[in-house]
Amino acid sequence: MAAILRGSRNVWGRIRHVDYTLVSSRSMASKTQVGFIGLGNMGNPMAKNLLKHGYPVIATDVFPESCKELQELGAQIVDNPAEVADKADRIVTMLPSSPNVIDVYTGANGILKKVKKGSLLIDSSTIDPAVSKEMALAVEKMGAVFMDAPVSGGVGAATSGKLTFMVGGVEEEFTAAQELLSCMGANVVYCGAVGTGQAAKICNNMLLAIGMIGTSETMNLGIRLGLDPKLLAKILNMSSGRCWSSDTYNPVPGVMEGVPSGNNYQGGFGTQLMAKDLGLAQATATNTKTPVPLGSLAHQIYRMMCARGYAGKDFSSVFMFLREDEKEEGQ
Amino acid sequence: MAAILRGSRNVWGRIRHVDYTLVSSRSMASKTQVGFIGLGNMGNPMAKNLLKHGYPVIATDVFPESCKELQELGAQIVDNPAEVADKADRIVTMLPSSPNVIDVYTGANGILKKVKKGSLLIDSSTIDPAVSKEMALAVEKMGAVFMDAPVSGGVGAATSGKLTFMVGGVEEEFTAAQELLSCMGANVVYCGAVGTGQAAKICNNMLLAIGMIGTSETMNLGIRLGLDPKLLAKILNMSSGRCWSSDTYNPVPGVMEGVPSGNNYQGGFGTQLMAKDLGLAQATATNTKTPVPLGSLAHQIYRMMCARGYAGKDFSSVFMFLREDEKEEGQ
Amino acid sequence: MAAILRGSRNVWGRIRHVDYTLVSSRSMASKTQVGFIGLGNMGNPMAKNLLKHGYPVIATDVFPESCKELQELGAQIVDNPAEVADKADRIVTMLPSSPNVIDVYTGANGILKKVKKGSLLIDSSTIDPAVSKEMALAVEKMGAVFMDAPVSGGVGAATSGKLTFMVGGVEEEFTAAQELLSCMGANVVYCGAVGTGQAAKICNNMLLAIGMIGTSETMNLGIRLGLDPKLLAKILNMSSGRCWSSDTYNPVPGVMEGVPSGNNYQGGFGTQLMAKDLGLAQATATNTKTPVPLGSLAHQIYRMMCARGYAGKDFSSVFMFLREDEKEEGQ
Amino acid sequence: MAAILRGSRNVWGRIRHVDYTLVSSRSMASKTQVGFIGLGNMGNPMAKNLLKHGYPVIATDVFPESCKELQELGAQIVDNPAEVADKADRIVTMLPSSPNVIDVYTGANGILKKVKKGSLLIDSSTIDPAVSKEMALAVEKMGAVFMDAPVSGGVGAATSGKLTFMVGGVEEEFTAAQELLSCMGANVVYCGAVGTGQAAKICNNMLLAIGMIGTSETMNLGIRLGLDPKLLAKILNMSSGRCWSSDTYNPVPGVMEGVPSGNNYQGGFGTQLMAKDLGLAQATATNTKTPVPLGSLAHQIYRMMCARGYAGKDFSSVFMFLREDEKEEGQ
Repeated sequence: MAAILRGSRNVWGRIRHVDYTLVSSRSMASKTQVGFIGLGNMGNPMAKNLLKHGYPVIATDVFPESCKELQELGAQIVDNPAEVADKADRIVTMLPSSPNVIDVYTGANGILKKVKKGSLLIDSSTIDPAVSKEMALAVEKMGAVFMDAPVSGGVGAATSGKLTFMVGGVEEEFTAAQELLSCMGANVVYCGAVGTGQAAKICNNMLLAIGMIGTSETMNLGIRLGLDPKLLAKILNMSSGRCWSSDTYNPVPGVMEGVPSGNNYQGGFGTQLMAKDLGLAQATATNTKTPVPLGSLAHQIYRMMCARGYAGKDFSSVFMFLREDEKEEGQ
Repeated sequence: MAAILRGSRNVWGRIRHVDYTLVSSRSMASKTQVGFIGLGNMGNPMAKNLLKHGYPVIATDVFPESCKELQELGAQIVDNPAEVADKADRIVTMLPSSPNVIDVYTGANGILKKVKKGSLLIDSSTIDPAVSKEMALAVEKMGAVFMDAPVSGGVGAATSGKLTFMVGGVEEEFTAAQELLSCMGANVVYCGAVGTGQAAKICNNMLLAIGMIGTSETMNLGIRLGLDPKLLAKILNMSSGRCWSSDTYNPVPGVMEGVPSGNNYQGGFGTQLMAKDLGLAQATATNTKTPVPLGSLAHQIYRMMCARGYAGKDFSSVFMFLREDEKEEGQ
Repeated sequence: MAAILRGSRNVWGRIRHVDYTLVSSRSMASKTQVGFIGLGNMGNPMAKNLLKHGYPVIATDVFPESCKELQELGAQIVDNPAEVADKADRIVTMLPSSPNVIDVYTGANGILKKVKKGSLLIDSSTIDPAVSKEMALAVEKMGAVFMDAPVSGGVGAATSGKLTFMVGGVEEEFTAAQELLSCMGANVVYCGAVGTGQAAKICNNMLLAIGMIGTSETMNLGIRLGLDPKLLAKILNMSSGRCWSSDTYNPVPGVMEGVPSGNNYQGGFGTQLMAKDLGLAQATATNTKTPVPLGSLAHQIYRMMCARGYAGKDFSSVFMFLREDEKEEGQ
Repeated sequence: MAAILRGSRNVWGRIRHVDYTLVSSRSMASKTQVGFIGLGNMGNPMAKNLLKHGYPVIATDVFPESCKELQELGAQIVDNPAEVADKADRIVTMLPSSPNVIDVYTGANGILKKVKKGSLLIDSSTIDPAVSKEMALAVEKMGAVFMDAPVSGGVGAATSGKLTFMVGGVEEEFTAAQELLSCMGANVVYCGAVGTGQAAKICNNMLLAIGMIGTSETMNLGIRLGLDPKLLAKILNMSSGRCWSSDTYNPVPGVMEGVPSGNNYQGGFGTQLMAKDLGLAQATATNTKTPVPLGSLAHQIYRMMCARGYAGKDFSSVFMFLREDEKEEGQ
């Protein structure tokens, strides 16, 4: 069948030049090489899961030592993102923050230096949705496709392949993205245009932080008023106060098992990472002139916690932060 | 005489003088007269449900016209709380605020003027737990029993007998209270010592307010970032952002059916009432020196809403309050 | 001269029965005994200043040891407030909180047991203005006069007689109050009806707390952005950011001399006391349904500081609380 | 040739290549042409003041009609920033926001296309200090000098030449900048390295917003507690609650004359502009991980006000926003 140019269309007031025929041919060529850029705590197990599912992986990272384990498992390691793009037409990126993403895509040795027409570039970093949109435009100009696909779930979920991916981008490409992402995650949710994956991630984590601080305040107040914490949790969970932080990840030691509050707030999702995500939510809200009073205060509370020694503890440790600390009080 | 003084015990540093034998004999004498004081929007349907369950009701209210309907249904109406106490040894009170409760119990024509030894007095008003404790002490001095049993659920739940009661008081009396309360509610939860019913109610509503404002901010931010509100609600509800306000009472018009957001925020739980409960939470937190930063800001937001014309709308209208109002913007 | 009943008038819907002639005769009888109840850190130097100005002082305190110093200086010490009221028709009270004031006035051995008609009772405690109004009504029923006169200025100002008194009460009595208060303070300001002295004090301290936290946030942000703290303070103080906390009591060590920030936040006005005053502001705002979003958050921040070991430090230590603490960070 | 390369030095890890001799020769050549880019509400009167002081002005603006008035007064109008840079070696820019600044400096027809070595470029826009630093680096690469010099004071101060300039940049260049800026302002303050001018501006306005909202809450609370607003303002202003918003720009109608609160909050500094500056403060705090709880809440409150019709009113109208609105309440 002859290639059909499905045409360009207007996104954010600009013209698209993607040839979807090339795209289609790429998506169908399964089990060909997949690029992976960023082999940190999250990227490493994600790339391994691609290997496990039979995909040849070609990878790179700014820290050479991060590549060793993957290399031993059979991945090809190259020097920089441009070389990855030279050899793979499907690439997943997993990077710490917006500047890293900008550099990996548009830098001197960035993907765009050698990206092939029709390539599918999936960014699983959690970054400002405005940066995702910028990257999408730059990628599009090269005739390739960009999708943002941030994850929820931590290192554990990355290792067991149980991440949730929230995906933004052209709907026609979602199936192709899903093919790869479902090797690494249990849920792959299509959210809409480019940037909406990030938006969904940021929104969820903002509400999560609000719920966690709210639950911590409430449990602390109830305990001081004489309520048994387990009983209070039970009452909240059968009432309108119920939320994920009260019924699944309760911050009060002893109320639930198998959560960080039962293990001195080790493991889980670090306060510093939550503060970073809330910073993104804050920046996005500021840019769109959206009032987020509780989200904003939640950001500040996690920021204060970072300044007071909680940076590395699970974000449910806000319960301890708010609670009276008798030793310190004794000064 | 079979009565055995089970002895006094120390509660909050004072001596109790309750004869539990009298109490026992009272509790077993079912279907004898039940007193009901406070026939407002909530009290009226609650008292009707007692009648429906075959209890003779003797009632009073400061507004005589509030008594008519119940009188026509067979209740005996008397002039004041003291007369109710003279004729019934089980009494339910349902009043708007702490000063009303203090007056109905300890005022010139209050219950305590004629309360019988061994009587069971159940207060379903939502008030400061410190006032509940004061009332309990005063009641106890008269040889009677006081329990606080505030409700969750509005006029609809009161009418259909589906309220949830959160009960604080002596555990031995819970069965007797439950017998009456289960005529008016679907759930009757024992919370602990006197005041803990109020504490549980206040805690739940504080977390509810935080969750509702948080959900409204989050939905508003997501919509501005290009997410479809129904899809965003779905994503939150399968993720860690999930809460009662997102999955059961979503504040965004069109996301769910059968909730106030689908009906111009009419019905439901008024902003003014939420502001009142948050004021109680605030006062209680202040008195116990408990930090509640989000609870406190939630209180202020509902207070600002009352000042801006939202007093009578459902508390989920905070979504509209935070959202850009184009008409006003045009000024 | 015959007593003339200048008549009763309606205050808060009740009838007054004060004989102002008696009042007048009392006010003119200067240098007769003055009662003083509450000889704590503040009350002790205040009473001494009355002695210095030639007033015979008759005093009491719940802690007998607090009375020794004053006794050695010539004051007469009695057992309880009632005895003070029996012997003096002008009494100043200086107590820690509302319950103490209620007890000292209306308790079993309270002032009201023996207060003389026409007595002038001045309460310099910082308490809820609603309690001041209650006391005023109770005092008035006994034919005496009550004024609230809380102070600003700490132990230093109390010792040097440089306190500021904010006075609420009947305007005709202000001169009589001023005669005594000016022995202990440099400014005596008439604020209006009973309770407005407290209102003024609470309002000032709420704005003070907001200004102090705001200054601390601002200085911290500026320093992180590369500004020299002294230069930043200078710029703020010549611009619209200027406030008492930036120009008179700067919270950053090294910016000013002679303030607690230069002395490891010792001395000054303790965080715990500020938290107490903000609790009063919060309660008053809640009762009057007044939105105070920043005041409310300021309260919560000082409350969190108390929970984190800052209770005894000067309230300007919020600068340290917000600043990154490297030692703790290293955990 | 007398030119001496005073040497390069390291700023933010990069090498500087500015020839300060060229710079010096330029600074001394007074009353030669000065470029001005951005002739809006602020830029227009500022450029006029340069003309008044005898400087030939060469100007441009994206809106041709904005240039007419200045042209009639003798300024030369050109098409774009590059042409300004081609003809003037001292240029002042006054633009609405960061993207405009980036475009005017680095865009297709931007200043940097034709900037001369040794030129002095002064940006008086209020923008993110990080953008100022970026611009400084780009300008420096061309051998020219960049300074940030945002203003405080509104259109009135711009017209009367009474602005305050907060200047960041190489100290050796401050005298040259001061020569121009003192034609337009009464105070020209040197703040430190590039970006510190913006930092000082942002810090001042954040503290200003906190002080204004705090003053409004406090005045409102005091009024509700029965205090006369003028008296309350007087008490605050002689006490520790004193701030610029209470003593110079009181937000309560009737307390002061000649301020926007006396004129239905018209004129002055718009709520929308304050919200913009607070957004910059927020972004800067987020980027530097600095907790600013009150600054953050102040930002949210001004954001909510924009959403409720206050965008165009003076920022002191927050007093009206917080105050009970009886008409709306009557719904």
